[in-house]
Amino acid sequence: MRENDLLEHIYRHNTSLPAHVSIPPGDDMAALDVGGTNVLVAVDQLADGIHFDLKNTPLQKVARKAITRNLSDIAAMAAQPVAAVVAGSLPKDFGKSNADALFDAMHATAEHYQCPLVGGDIAIWAGPLLLTVTVLAEPAGVEPVTRRGTKVGDVVCITGQLGGSLETVNGRTHHLDFEPRLSVARALAGDENLRPTSMIDLSDGLAMDVSRLCRLNAVGVELWADRLPVRAAGHQAAHRDQRPPWMHALSDGEDYELAFTLSAQAAEHHLPAEIEGVPITQVGLIIEGDDLLIKQPDGTVVPLDALGAMGWEHQSNG
Amino acid sequence: MRENDLLEHIYRHNTSLPAHVSIPPGDDMAALDVGGTNVLVAVDQLADGIHFDLKNTPLQKVARKAITRNLSDIAAMAAQPVAAVVAGSLPKDFGKSNADALFDAMHATAEHYQCPLVGGDIAIWAGPLLLTVTVLAEPAGVEPVTRRGTKVGDVVCITGQLGGSLETVNGRTHHLDFEPRLSVARALAGDENLRPTSMIDLSDGLAMDVSRLCRLNAVGVELWADRLPVRAAGHQAAHRDQRPPWMHALSDGEDYELAFTLSAQAAEHHLPAEIEGVPITQVGLIIEGDDLLIKQPDGTVVPLDALGAMGWEHQSNG
Repeated sequence: MRENDLLEHIYRHNTSLPAHVSIPPGDDMAALDVGGTNVLVAVDQLADGIHFDLKNTPLQKVARKAITRNLSDIAAMAAQPVAAVVAGSLPKDFGKSNADALFDAMHATAEHYQCPLVGGDIAIWAGPLLLTVTVLAEPAGVEPVTRRGTKVGDVVCITGQLGGSLETVNGRTHHLDFEPRLSVARALAGDENLRPTSMIDLSDGLAMDVSRLCRLNAVGVELWADRLPVRAAGHQAAHRDQRPPWMHALSDGEDYELAFTLSAQAAEHHLPAEIEGVPITQVGLIIEGDDLLIKQPDGTVVPLDALGAMGWEHQSNG
Repeated sequence: MRENDLLEHIYRHNTSLPAHVSIPPGDDMAALDVGGTNVLVAVDQLADGIHFDLKNTPLQKVARKAITRNLSDIAAMAAQPVAAVVAGSLPKDFGKSNADALFDAMHATAEHYQCPLVGGDIAIWAGPLLLTVTVLAEPAGVEPVTRRGTKVGDVVCITGQLGGSLETVNGRTHHLDFEPRLSVARALAGDENLRPTSMIDLSDGLAMDVSRLCRLNAVGVELWADRLPVRAAGHQAAHRDQRPPWMHALSDGEDYELAFTLSAQAAEHHLPAEIEGVPITQVGLIIEGDDLLIKQPDGTVVPLDALGAMGWEHQSNG
């Protein structure tokens, strides 16, 4: 039983959805036409033992991640947050002061990103801590960017740096402390010279998430190992396990950066090296067919599969 | 640690919410102004061991309840469903065919109620089965009815019958098989002669849910034991535990009927005995002060508290 297979099964119902569903399931968010207004919605869960380890993680960081993970989905659509609702299942021994601290911290993070917490449901149970956050968003003047639209010849670009998101460097652990790319996404999508043909947020690793874009759009990709920007934590992870740093950039999960595609011409003439201080890097090319390839630093081109780069499914499974 | 206390803590943030939150947390749904359109949102969890018992419950019923429980929140606002998203945490040994059957059944229920499932997140974990459903709704021409607005002198009315929702009678178990009161609510709220002053759905028992309305509106209530309509399952429960049937109607949870208040004059002149085949019954009166009372069949009036009628917090806790 794999999570992706289960989701694929759900998407089979997409063909029978009513007309007011303007972006169906399978994207970073779905979109609905409500009284002539486009409303986007997405849900994500954060579970102890999968997405964080409660024993080693301050509650404030758990709370922050519960919100920011969903904000990364909003960024992937180039949308603007409207509000969030949260359902929490708390272990019986969690305690009221911990519960209050957790929800206060979620509230503070939500408020910081103009995504107020407007509803909640709490259950106290025998299971582990689980937080389920649903976010609503709106286009607010920028047409949402979806996962559909990737074209052969497009370049693949990413925001920021990749790899080692579970490592702690200088007291910072990327999967807990990342900055959702909300304003970079809107700057890209709102600029007619830079508007991506498709976009996705990187939660399961560059290789896996870009391969999703490719399958959806019936295209292939060649990624370039020597162009992958590796964050310090990725180098630290590489030092630890003696694999090359670019392997971590390629396959580690929870980057919460954006991958997007752009015509080669637009990239050549208009793409800046950074937007609002966030580096933008070309890391590959969309190709005809269905090959998912990586050009290694020695120039050889191999399937992503061959490197075991596609297996990442969160902390406790990885 | 009680769920209600935790929620109260969350509502303390309501004073700092931005202006686009038109109905703040604490009602059956929150409402947001999105590009000039009102969008309502609510989240609810359904957990194995709390809201159902997976060992004794067909998956189709679990799936149905996950959706209909949230539809009951939409009914309580007299709103119209737009869409739902669901997050599922599945036990490791749940199996793909069970997972597919569960999501197919949720999809079918959602479709039946014109509330299409447009997003999902699935985690496989060491905990019990947990389904978290978020629903979106719209006013669609009927101003939402909130929990605020109860007036002294209003009568308290309910839809349908109450009590014994966990009992099985003729193969029907109310907490799994109930019909959310979507169209009755809209018929009431859309009729200027019948529009409730406040409304709430009955999930934690008539006594507890009506007391919530009262506290929120700084009023008291006198409920009438001999007017409470008891469903067959409530009589069965009464037979089993030798308590009077009206006690079950008063304090059993998971009725998923609506309680609403209405001026005495409107009730006297306009309230029909049923709407769309669903009985409407006057079961009490809003009074000045903060007393929460029940007039027993012998005519004596006692506090609801004194009967232990206020303690219901779902299957496994009750």
